[in-house]
Amino acid sequence: MTRGHIDLMPLDEAQRRFFDALDAVGFFAAPEECVPARRALGRITSRPARARRPVPHFRSAAMDGVAVVADRTTSASPETPIRLQEPQDFVYVDTGDVVPAPFDAVIKIEDVRQLEPGLIEVERPIASGKNLRTIGEDVQKGEIVVPETFKVTPEAVAALLNAGAFDVWVKRQLRAMYFPTGSELVSPMIDLRPGQLPESNSQIVSGYLRQWGCVVDIGPIIPDDRAALRSALGEAAAECDLVLVGGGTSMGREDLTGTVISELGRVLVHGVAYHPGHPVVLGLVGEKPAIGLPGYPVASWVALHLFVRPLIERYYGLAFDRPPIVEGRLAETIRSAPGAVEFVRVRLEPEADGWRVIKLRGGASRLSSLIRADGILEVPADVRELPAGTRVRVRLLKTLS
Amino acid sequence: MTRGHIDLMPLDEAQRRFFDALDAVGFFAAPEECVPARRALGRITSRPARARRPVPHFRSAAMDGVAVVADRTTSASPETPIRLQEPQDFVYVDTGDVVPAPFDAVIKIEDVRQLEPGLIEVERPIASGKNLRTIGEDVQKGEIVVPETFKVTPEAVAALLNAGAFDVWVKRQLRAMYFPTGSELVSPMIDLRPGQLPESNSQIVSGYLRQWGCVVDIGPIIPDDRAALRSALGEAAAECDLVLVGGGTSMGREDLTGTVISELGRVLVHGVAYHPGHPVVLGLVGEKPAIGLPGYPVASWVALHLFVRPLIERYYGLAFDRPPIVEGRLAETIRSAPGAVEFVRVRLEPEADGWRVIKLRGGASRLSSLIRADGILEVPADVRELPAGTRVRVRLLKTLS
Repeated sequence: MTRGHIDLMPLDEAQRRFFDALDAVGFFAAPEECVPARRALGRITSRPARARRPVPHFRSAAMDGVAVVADRTTSASPETPIRLQEPQDFVYVDTGDVVPAPFDAVIKIEDVRQLEPGLIEVERPIASGKNLRTIGEDVQKGEIVVPETFKVTPEAVAALLNAGAFDVWVKRQLRAMYFPTGSELVSPMIDLRPGQLPESNSQIVSGYLRQWGCVVDIGPIIPDDRAALRSALGEAAAECDLVLVGGGTSMGREDLTGTVISELGRVLVHGVAYHPGHPVVLGLVGEKPAIGLPGYPVASWVALHLFVRPLIERYYGLAFDRPPIVEGRLAETIRSAPGAVEFVRVRLEPEADGWRVIKLRGGASRLSSLIRADGILEVPADVRELPAGTRVRVRLLKTLS
Repeated sequence: MTRGHIDLMPLDEAQRRFFDALDAVGFFAAPEECVPARRALGRITSRPARARRPVPHFRSAAMDGVAVVADRTTSASPETPIRLQEPQDFVYVDTGDVVPAPFDAVIKIEDVRQLEPGLIEVERPIASGKNLRTIGEDVQKGEIVVPETFKVTPEAVAALLNAGAFDVWVKRQLRAMYFPTGSELVSPMIDLRPGQLPESNSQIVSGYLRQWGCVVDIGPIIPDDRAALRSALGEAAAECDLVLVGGGTSMGREDLTGTVISELGRVLVHGVAYHPGHPVVLGLVGEKPAIGLPGYPVASWVALHLFVRPLIERYYGLAFDRPPIVEGRLAETIRSAPGAVEFVRVRLEPEADGWRVIKLRGGASRLSSLIRADGILEVPADVRELPAGTRVRVRLLKTLS
């Protein structure tokens, strides 16, 4: 399919071609680093973390009662109770107390008859190890506490510290750099003149990339100047793992992103068959992925989710949680350009048997539509029309009450 | 139902009694504060945020072409084309360029016949507003950009900045303080002696509370000393919104948490009918919630999710995303104490038509089980046995591949 000057590649082919090229240069073999377990929350392990000490590290009582030698209770019965003397035959213990050798079982305090201070009677034998927490019962020394390619949860941090695993090997965070481009872009904090556009896509890019576990730098706005863009991208590719450029991705007179990426490295894909946002550039500068995101905010958002999120997932070796999908019924007929996947922003209204799905109007420039939308409906490339009333699946953008 | 000395309250009644009491003291009316939009990511709005300027703030071309006065093209047809002279009848514009008055439509460059420099011919009339982005097309000045009780997303930050809404009213973050208690607790970073327990539950509490949008302070370990606990809790309740105590929640000799909370305020619930972790204390110190979490790590984790998470959700007025639920079939029969909800840690193994659900062994002290578990199976209070092969629903703890 062609559109203007750009040959549009099917979405799945574009993703495959890009990720295959990244694979070929070894991009997905994330480097690792060793960090303190206390600071590892949210990081992805690169090796299994093993216990440096057993958990628990001493034998303790699992009940309030008396610690005894199990073997000496074998003959006990209600008819032939046995008498035990403190401290040679038993000691009193509360839950969690050390059970000293040679004692190897704990009789619950309710099952003990107190005859006089230091003298008790028991009417039932107890098995060795009963009501006892043994050394390494939870984790043996040397055992894996947290496996490889595991996103470190709060409980994993606690388990690592308990097991004396104070340092843990994790995948280095992906370091990304984003450059907004376009001579019309200015800081959103100023009084805008006609023709000036507030630069705010960097907020979207940095917000999501941090959420997805990256370290993100936002570069200065690059004007429509080939030399400036070239020098910024060259430096960023040397310093970072991932270079992102916002804008300049069409084939217009001032659209430099594809040109500069091809000068510095190679463009693998320019233009992908989906809406909104087909003018995306996927390339490499050296061995670093370089992605040109469209300038329109909705298009930038979609490209971020279609190309950057899966790239990061492959780098870390883990799929991030996706928001849930709900089923609903189309309020009106949706027409879609043939040959291109369409991502439709929709609102959802509750109805008797599910959700009423209402398409939001407006093009890729309408950032507000992403905030008003409850979800995204994906219309496959070979579907030209979804009649009103069709049952569809919608990926939620926010949790619905 | 009773267990030892504690009267156990049904889980839903415990939650209701606690939240009703918090409601009565106005706890859920979160205070608000005004913060810069750039720093509002992840915060929950307390008022709608309105646009201080329209987006876009100037009329611009939505296509590359020529800007014209639509009225002057009314008579154009292939047989009677009209000629337009630059600059009085038209100007050239690229997408995004300012469209100056009196021009009110843009004819695509492909639809224009170039006769000589500055002179063109058009063969079709154009409607006013066509291919034009009008002022406020996305957001009108004064219109709501981000609604109330909305978790600020990256795209919301961008939209706020675009609309000149540089400050935004958000709910103040809930300030929580957690005290680990117990004379046996020590820093996990030292060489442990028998009888000492590494204090690591604070990692679980702080990790989750921060994830749920709170500001968390971890207090020092409080020994089993009534005066020390009393003074720590009293100060924390004066300074914070939520006081959490780890351990000392049973009715044993050294279990002070319930006693001290009742001395400083009132205990609403002590002991709830669920496993693992029934010895939870829910109370108030002044108008501040005070919660005693059990000392065993798994029990602490469960109590955090059953009582603290919904408390925070009500404070912010928003439900957090829950991990998905999957269906599976029990590998073996699970027996459950009657009268108490049981939260069973399970592993999942893929089988032909779904998941095989395998119960993990071990009590509430086995933190490692939370890391090995793929999900949690909730067994209702009135169910005593789930036979092998029963189809059950499991709430995932991690995303399964």
